[in-house]
Amino acid sequence: MHVDDLVTPALLVERGALRRNLDTMSAALPGTRLRPHVKAHKCTSLARWQRDNGHPGFTCATIRECEVMVEHGLGGDLLLANEVVDASRLGALVRNGARITLAVDSRETIAAALRGNVLEVVIDVNVGLPRCGCPPEKAGELAELARRNGLEVRGVMGYEGHLMMVRPEEDQRRMVRESMEKLVAAAREVGGELVSAGGTGTYRLNEWATEIQAGSYALMDSAYAELGHPFEQALFVLGTVISVSADHAVVDVGLKALGMDHGNPTIPGAQVWFCSDEHTTFAPGALKLRVGDRIRVVPAHVDPTVAYHEAMWLVDGEQVAERWAVDMRGW
Amino acid sequence: MHVDDLVTPALLVERGALRRNLDTMSAALPGTRLRPHVKAHKCTSLARWQRDNGHPGFTCATIRECEVMVEHGLGGDLLLANEVVDASRLGALVRNGARITLAVDSRETIAAALRGNVLEVVIDVNVGLPRCGCPPEKAGELAELARRNGLEVRGVMGYEGHLMMVRPEEDQRRMVRESMEKLVAAAREVGGELVSAGGTGTYRLNEWATEIQAGSYALMDSAYAELGHPFEQALFVLGTVISVSADHAVVDVGLKALGMDHGNPTIPGAQVWFCSDEHTTFAPGALKLRVGDRIRVVPAHVDPTVAYHEAMWLVDGEQVAERWAVDMRGW
Repeated sequence: MHVDDLVTPALLVERGALRRNLDTMSAALPGTRLRPHVKAHKCTSLARWQRDNGHPGFTCATIRECEVMVEHGLGGDLLLANEVVDASRLGALVRNGARITLAVDSRETIAAALRGNVLEVVIDVNVGLPRCGCPPEKAGELAELARRNGLEVRGVMGYEGHLMMVRPEEDQRRMVRESMEKLVAAAREVGGELVSAGGTGTYRLNEWATEIQAGSYALMDSAYAELGHPFEQALFVLGTVISVSADHAVVDVGLKALGMDHGNPTIPGAQVWFCSDEHTTFAPGALKLRVGDRIRVVPAHVDPTVAYHEAMWLVDGEQVAERWAVDMRGW
Repeated sequence: MHVDDLVTPALLVERGALRRNLDTMSAALPGTRLRPHVKAHKCTSLARWQRDNGHPGFTCATIRECEVMVEHGLGGDLLLANEVVDASRLGALVRNGARITLAVDSRETIAAALRGNVLEVVIDVNVGLPRCGCPPEKAGELAELARRNGLEVRGVMGYEGHLMMVRPEEDQRRMVRESMEKLVAAAREVGGELVSAGGTGTYRLNEWATEIQAGSYALMDSAYAELGHPFEQALFVLGTVISVSADHAVVDVGLKALGMDHGNPTIPGAQVWFCSDEHTTFAPGALKLRVGDRIRVVPAHVDPTVAYHEAMWLVDGEQVAERWAVDMRGW
């Protein structure tokens, strides 16, 4: 199939770029040094490529992601890097043989793990991003509570998400070190083998974590692309030009095909004006566009873009190689 | 079922508020004066309520929306208020008895209507929003071209989307008049009975259109709520508080459950700090929150919020009345 035969908007993944991104990361962080985060792609076909690249364990953000990974035989070592109050669906996965480790950061979430019959947890530590995670000095106490109640505590996690885009890199390195020193101190109190942290923005310089939870590196977006990582843009939203006026043109890729929290998408060679539900209006610049032309739109943020689409199309340039379901959407 | 039994995040629709919103709009714009836009809710169950309120025709933004409306017996008079380059799926609906009217704004989109065997069109006119639509002075010529090729031209459409949120209202009224005078002039050249325009932001003062394409009024969002319309917030995203710290709390409603192009959602009584993929971090203010509490998050923009969810739950306060599939997602 040719890309011109796809209904637009369509999520495209360049196979070669994806392959190279996965290989680059697997060379830097081989085997269990990387625990790929599936939230960035929500696609078990892509996760299978990551597993085949030598990474047996995965990070998930939702219970649904865990369920679908298990259903596709990818449930050998899943870390749900998020707190939940009802863990019963996770317990059901464990009973059926999956290995699920759940993040906990409070007495209440430890109680939820117990009620739900999850057997293994990590203590989630706040390392500077104001989100989930206990204060570092409370981690030991929570681990103790969890163990006293029969849970296996595998270690700690702490996400330095506020530092992913810090520049210059020397500032980032210093700030990541300060952040990770908190996590390492907590890990000493907690025990266990896991110190899970990091992301695509810090994978090169986070030497303190035993494993890195990167996800965006596989597909990339325009926000990460500005930071000079060795990953290529593999993700595009293919659109059809549906209207051309004197000073602007319109492509049928809109708010419902793009994560917008990082701002407007980009169109190489053109200037984006604004997005509507089903349109992006742009000044075509030097592009000579006609109604019916196909163009590629580069999303500003990969994760919420992918979550709008039923499928991604693996392509080699203009040739469509395969349809991959975005099968981990929803909750 | 009680709302506490729902998996979160969950899209809630307050049945009473929805009922009143529909009735208020139907009283202001009865029968064919309103052509409800389904893009705001993407839900045939909700569209059926609109039809039962006396509105036989609907506005759609995508081919998929048309297909699903037809499949559910709601295809009596659908206006696809958007340009397409491949109209063959629409032609198939027409062949099976649906009435589909397609927007065209160029020779190319007229050719697409012909190739796809769509029988009826409206001329889409640019009334000031730089998006689709021909220049007003070209509308007559395009109508002539369409008719010469055998298409039925039902009239014009033109969306004054750039004026939905203008305040004070006297400025808005003047600007809408100027915008609609262009459309009315084009309509005189084009002929036909339809002058289709407007939205929730201008429904009260657009006296020039024969029909108004409003959609947001049914469910509402925080952006429209600020404008003083007589519609109530009917849409909420229910979340579970999963972490509570000294100065902030976290609810499991994130970027993938919220349209973010109008900015952060609101949490009544609290102050939202930021959203992550599966979290909103906020200062709880006077709310006394504990892990496990359920709270309602109000989206800033209704359309792209709904498009992330598989279903909406019709509720009466804490009681769940019905599950409505968001069955018009995708393309």
